[in-house]
Amino acid sequence: MRAGVVGSRSESVRRANLAAVLRSLQLVGALTRSELVDRTGLTRSAIGDLVSELAEIGLVIEEPTGSGGAPGRPSPLVRPTEHVVVLALEVLVDSVAVAAVALGGVVLVDQRMERPRSRTPVTRTLDDLTRLADGVVAALPDGTRIQGAAVAVAGLTRGSDDAVVAAPNIGWREVPLGTLLRQRLDLDDVVRVGNEANLAALAESRRGVAAGLANVVYISGEVGVGGGVIADGDPLAGGAGFAGEVGHLPVNPDGRACRCGGVGCWETEIGEGALLRRAGWPEDGGLAAIDEIVRAADAGGAEVLAALAEHGRWLGVGLAGVVNIFDPDVVVLGGLLGRLCSWLRPMMSVELDRRALPAIRERVRIEASSLGRDAPLLGAAEVAWERVLADPAAVAAV
Amino acid sequence: MRAGVVGSRSESVRRANLAAVLRSLQLVGALTRSELVDRTGLTRSAIGDLVSELAEIGLVIEEPTGSGGAPGRPSPLVRPTEHVVVLALEVLVDSVAVAAVALGGVVLVDQRMERPRSRTPVTRTLDDLTRLADGVVAALPDGTRIQGAAVAVAGLTRGSDDAVVAAPNIGWREVPLGTLLRQRLDLDDVVRVGNEANLAALAESRRGVAAGLANVVYISGEVGVGGGVIADGDPLAGGAGFAGEVGHLPVNPDGRACRCGGVGCWETEIGEGALLRRAGWPEDGGLAAIDEIVRAADAGGAEVLAALAEHGRWLGVGLAGVVNIFDPDVVVLGGLLGRLCSWLRPMMSVELDRRALPAIRERVRIEASSLGRDAPLLGAAEVAWERVLADPAAVAAV
Repeated sequence: MRAGVVGSRSESVRRANLAAVLRSLQLVGALTRSELVDRTGLTRSAIGDLVSELAEIGLVIEEPTGSGGAPGRPSPLVRPTEHVVVLALEVLVDSVAVAAVALGGVVLVDQRMERPRSRTPVTRTLDDLTRLADGVVAALPDGTRIQGAAVAVAGLTRGSDDAVVAAPNIGWREVPLGTLLRQRLDLDDVVRVGNEANLAALAESRRGVAAGLANVVYISGEVGVGGGVIADGDPLAGGAGFAGEVGHLPVNPDGRACRCGGVGCWETEIGEGALLRRAGWPEDGGLAAIDEIVRAADAGGAEVLAALAEHGRWLGVGLAGVVNIFDPDVVVLGGLLGRLCSWLRPMMSVELDRRALPAIRERVRIEASSLGRDAPLLGAAEVAWERVLADPAAVAAV
Repeated sequence: MRAGVVGSRSESVRRANLAAVLRSLQLVGALTRSELVDRTGLTRSAIGDLVSELAEIGLVIEEPTGSGGAPGRPSPLVRPTEHVVVLALEVLVDSVAVAAVALGGVVLVDQRMERPRSRTPVTRTLDDLTRLADGVVAALPDGTRIQGAAVAVAGLTRGSDDAVVAAPNIGWREVPLGTLLRQRLDLDDVVRVGNEANLAALAESRRGVAAGLANVVYISGEVGVGGGVIADGDPLAGGAGFAGEVGHLPVNPDGRACRCGGVGCWETEIGEGALLRRAGWPEDGGLAAIDEIVRAADAGGAEVLAALAEHGRWLGVGLAGVVNIFDPDVVVLGGLLGRLCSWLRPMMSVELDRRALPAIRERVRIEASSLGRDAPLLGAAEVAWERVLADPAAVAAV
């Protein structure tokens, strides 16, 4: 990737080059000046000037490196600082969380609060997020600057006005969450709002098990089943930003009623409730029951293993459709599906082998999430950093 | 869209601006110089120079326009010529076709040959395409220059080496069709190879019922059911170019065996065979039987109308999954599904209303193809024109 712009229209070119350097650091973390030259295609002296400017803004520091055996003067290491951070927030069905994330995806502080699974009023959630955010900010060193914020939500979200359109499992409809959080957290800039699976897909494709791959499907299996898609390197949005709702693929048209109002959606076969039902628990047994199931599976319990095999079979049925549609390099299983992946995989593979088109099946890898529970928060941080990355010089003006 | 590049690095900038002007003409057809100024953001005098160069190459002519009531000198009309064309070819399960297509998507000559539905050897198909191409070329005026070619195929195709990976309904596996056609047609340049539904999606999004929309799903219902997706303005390729195979979504896991080796794929419920079965015909009745069904439906035959209703119901089941995944602006129904759209729509809508997420359902339109049988050929022409559009000046060198 040679992202630098060589040219003469000075101000816009300088900003673009500043952004190119910062994006490299955001993706990889610390890099030597030589590595920045290679990645951006800019000259050594241009990199020197840009790094100085980023250091002045407080976004990076330079450190001497050892010679490392290479001839000549060692290239200084350019390292993101922890002086500038973004707030990444998350609203899931059974928890809320806030983290302060530095450049390069480094989580400096994070706090999570488990909550009962019930329809939670917006004001209560704002209270909880504010309390967590206060705790996170208080734990940061004095002088740390917050330069952006974004929130991941288990629901349909709309980017144009940073609102939650519908989050049936939380009980929300048309909540202007970005605006509300900006007011409550007293932030200068808009708080971006995104779907948790879309943001997790972004994080996995930048820093997780899908890093470096251009075509990624992330499937988040929790109470509901969501999805996020990276197509040719970019998030798949759809016309209104709602794309990726793989949980509502109709895999069993005469099956069970789905929370969405449909029938036989994939979510009714691979969501948490389906596993609990198959294992003989009440469908609303929650995480405590899931923990029991994992313990029983570890102990080789036949009934639980059979339930997991059937769950894996339905996972494979829907996955075949997903891979036939997207031809992805990798499918990342998140949440419950990631946690249970090793038990689900055998029957999942049988159905995939049977139903996916061979040319697609032979390429695709199916992997458990490597970022785990942090994936949506890290994705929110990517989005929150975007404003600074697009114009690093604007940070100085604050 | 302001696509022009204002700047000083003369040769590359000139070529980019030439391309910007030609792309506008390819999309819209004839435009006045003033309209080109508006569309490209280039100056009036730059447009004048670029149009002169394109006219010299033989790609456009200029015509005086009437004053049209506007004050001042009327702006000359820049019109694509028919001196430079591309060859668009097509290999479907029951026909092959060749067309000569001028800039702006104008089909100058086309020839189609219906063929029996049987596994057709590659050499036989090359013979048929060559014969059609000879006829098309013979019908063009002397001096017409062929500047590119592309072929649409009902199968999985690979862009990297312009090959057909698998076309089960034609009986092909790993056919280097682009190379073979280039040799047989004695063309200077590579013949591009693409999936017919992907190419039809491209054509519908440029010139058809989806023109101007950025998020489009095209579903081609014939013997097999294929799909093509335009996401945020660009074709969705997937990791190896196989994305969009919606015909192999598993909608009925305990259903019928599919040609792909899977079970209960959407194709087994909305392909041609499924309709014939429901209407009481042999599944291999072919187009003649379909014509009978259409006549019976026109005459109000109860049995056929019931079969169409059930077909529409299954169309709606799968469509719900497709729209939940892609959040498209429009779904375009092509082939048999487009032809039967008015009968399929009522039950299709019932299932969509029931199963699609409301925020997605309320936005999406479902439309019959407006390009009909020409859609894949017009899409192939778009791809064939791409080389000239990217660098119009290269035409002069030929």
